[in-house]
Amino acid sequence: MNTQIPKESLQLRSLVKKNGEMELSLAATPVPDPGPNEVVVRIEAAPINPSDLGLLLAAVDWKDPKVGGSANRPTVTAATPISAGALRAMAARVDISMPVGNEGAGVVIAAGSSAAAQALIGKTVAGLGGAMYSQFRTLPVSQLLVLPSGTTAREAASCFVNPLTALGMVDTMRREGHKALVHTAAASNLGQMLNRVCLQDHVPLINIVRNADQEALLRSAGARYVCRSDSGTFMQELTEALAATGATLAFDAIGGGPLAGQILACMEAALNRNATTFNRYGSPVHKQVYLYGALDPSPTVLTRNVGMAWGVGGWLVMPYLEKIGPQGLQALKDRVAAELKTTFASHYSGELSLLEALRPENIDAYGRRATGQKYLINPNK
Amino acid sequence: MNTQIPKESLQLRSLVKKNGEMELSLAATPVPDPGPNEVVVRIEAAPINPSDLGLLLAAVDWKDPKVGGSANRPTVTAATPISAGALRAMAARVDISMPVGNEGAGVVIAAGSSAAAQALIGKTVAGLGGAMYSQFRTLPVSQLLVLPSGTTAREAASCFVNPLTALGMVDTMRREGHKALVHTAAASNLGQMLNRVCLQDHVPLINIVRNADQEALLRSAGARYVCRSDSGTFMQELTEALAATGATLAFDAIGGGPLAGQILACMEAALNRNATTFNRYGSPVHKQVYLYGALDPSPTVLTRNVGMAWGVGGWLVMPYLEKIGPQGLQALKDRVAAELKTTFASHYSGELSLLEALRPENIDAYGRRATGQKYLINPNK
Repeated sequence: MNTQIPKESLQLRSLVKKNGEMELSLAATPVPDPGPNEVVVRIEAAPINPSDLGLLLAAVDWKDPKVGGSANRPTVTAATPISAGALRAMAARVDISMPVGNEGAGVVIAAGSSAAAQALIGKTVAGLGGAMYSQFRTLPVSQLLVLPSGTTAREAASCFVNPLTALGMVDTMRREGHKALVHTAAASNLGQMLNRVCLQDHVPLINIVRNADQEALLRSAGARYVCRSDSGTFMQELTEALAATGATLAFDAIGGGPLAGQILACMEAALNRNATTFNRYGSPVHKQVYLYGALDPSPTVLTRNVGMAWGVGGWLVMPYLEKIGPQGLQALKDRVAAELKTTFASHYSGELSLLEALRPENIDAYGRRATGQKYLINPNK
Repeated sequence: MNTQIPKESLQLRSLVKKNGEMELSLAATPVPDPGPNEVVVRIEAAPINPSDLGLLLAAVDWKDPKVGGSANRPTVTAATPISAGALRAMAARVDISMPVGNEGAGVVIAAGSSAAAQALIGKTVAGLGGAMYSQFRTLPVSQLLVLPSGTTAREAASCFVNPLTALGMVDTMRREGHKALVHTAAASNLGQMLNRVCLQDHVPLINIVRNADQEALLRSAGARYVCRSDSGTFMQELTEALAATGATLAFDAIGGGPLAGQILACMEAALNRNATTFNRYGSPVHKQVYLYGALDPSPTVLTRNVGMAWGVGGWLVMPYLEKIGPQGLQALKDRVAAELKTTFASHYSGELSLLEALRPENIDAYGRRATGQKYLINPNK
């Protein structure tokens, strides 16, 4: 008993042209009929995650963009073209109009012939499928999370990226033999979520934040260790917290600048604090910082006062999910569904239609990646 | 049938004092009687490896040091005291007179009661035991490598650190799933040795060097890929070599500055060269640079144009040897002994007595870590 499937779906697009121009637009795309194990979802809420912004806005200055097109099909073009170097790094997407949006939620309006698909009609589901800044998406049942009744699309919009990232961090800590965690940009939606997961799982967590408001936010959520990088005694405070928790693993969303190296140096200082013999190569205990973001895109600067047992590297949730396999993923999804309104709740500062998402003042707002400022796109608003 | 065991052995010492003064001296130390499975070795050749210099000279300016003591027991003190920060990092060695010298070779002059120990009397052996800048060392048989007759102590002096490091690099490549190697400061004694190992084992090796002489040296030794970091087209040439070999692992002796990041960036560029689809996170193939030295002690600067599948970290031969266990180590030792005059031959630019090792002009020479300049200490010269 399918609702009429719309012929077309408006979709947000990001295009990098050969000449370096970068343009956002809306495109009308066909809605494929669902296969036996597929459904058509009317997308009502899709978050703009930091991981979406790289594709959507690239590393481009979006100040004072040029607005063009028509009222219903506007385009917006960055005032400054992309540099030749950055363009080379994006070679594979040049002149291809890219859809955007890793995750989102909505209501199933049509389904394929299988019982599993038919059972979802009318249900609120969340999906991880790309191109979620679309009015309608045809998706396989296996890529969906079915929410308990009474769950809104807004509540379900951020079911995947942040929850699975937070759970993946704690699981990586266990698999790699560490016993406590450090997290930077810790007042973010993800950071608040990680704090709740760690409190629930009794994992000591050191939250690194940038100001008093962020500290207060995390303290009020029960965080025990909060270190402020704007403090004149940041390194001492961090070393104390590291000595108290024994944390030798950090996840860093900042990426650029000295922070990752400072964390390693403080870990080394905490480990050496009670050293009784001189080891010319420093502590033999391995210290690791994973960079999972690039809030600061400048180079990562590592001072060599960390001994020799250390590592810094990139970390992404998707390769982690591949590693744990479908059964492991299902267990995580079940936990997310059960705790969606508590541990895994997200908060948003605004909801934008597709047209509103192309307005310069809104691009400026969601492009800032400011802590606590997270936006939803509702393609059917 | 033991020779008379000398009562005392002169030993080179390095001392960091609480007030930041750093002093080199000679100390007379007792020679312990050998236990059943031990022998006494008269040390005749011990190399000054980069890995010894950290302990011996620390990161201190040794220009115009103060010479004191007597003709037979001189002392030499660095003109500038160690900074408070560096002193904190060396807390565990402060006011402790440290013996130096990771490895060396000589002749067994006395042995404990066991047959294994007795069998070594008069033999040339190499040892990895620390405190090798000593006239005599009592060492367990298990820590020795017995050389074929006709091997001199000078030939045997560098049996362990460089050969096991070169073999460890190739083995790490295999264990971590890479198929080719990059090596920096590749004209060093170690680099030349790694080149010979890789030629023999058919492992593609990209040698990064700093000038034309170093390139010529490696080319004459059969190196196929040599990239000069002083070339204006270094990055392009390195990318070409990486694309040709598929190397995704580098061992870097430089450590500081942009080089490690440049290697990762060129690996990423080589991997993306034939990419047919855009991956916003870059190539999913893991790229790794291990820093095993600090010829440049300035911070390591990593530009973030390397995708997300990458790692940088410290690497040391000793933890690697612990990982492969005693049987693995014995196999490596056997290969080193068999190929000591070919694959694992070392070259020295000077041989110093213990007294000569304390002369300011010699400290200046071996402290420079210049490529191709490697010194031996002969404590019985």
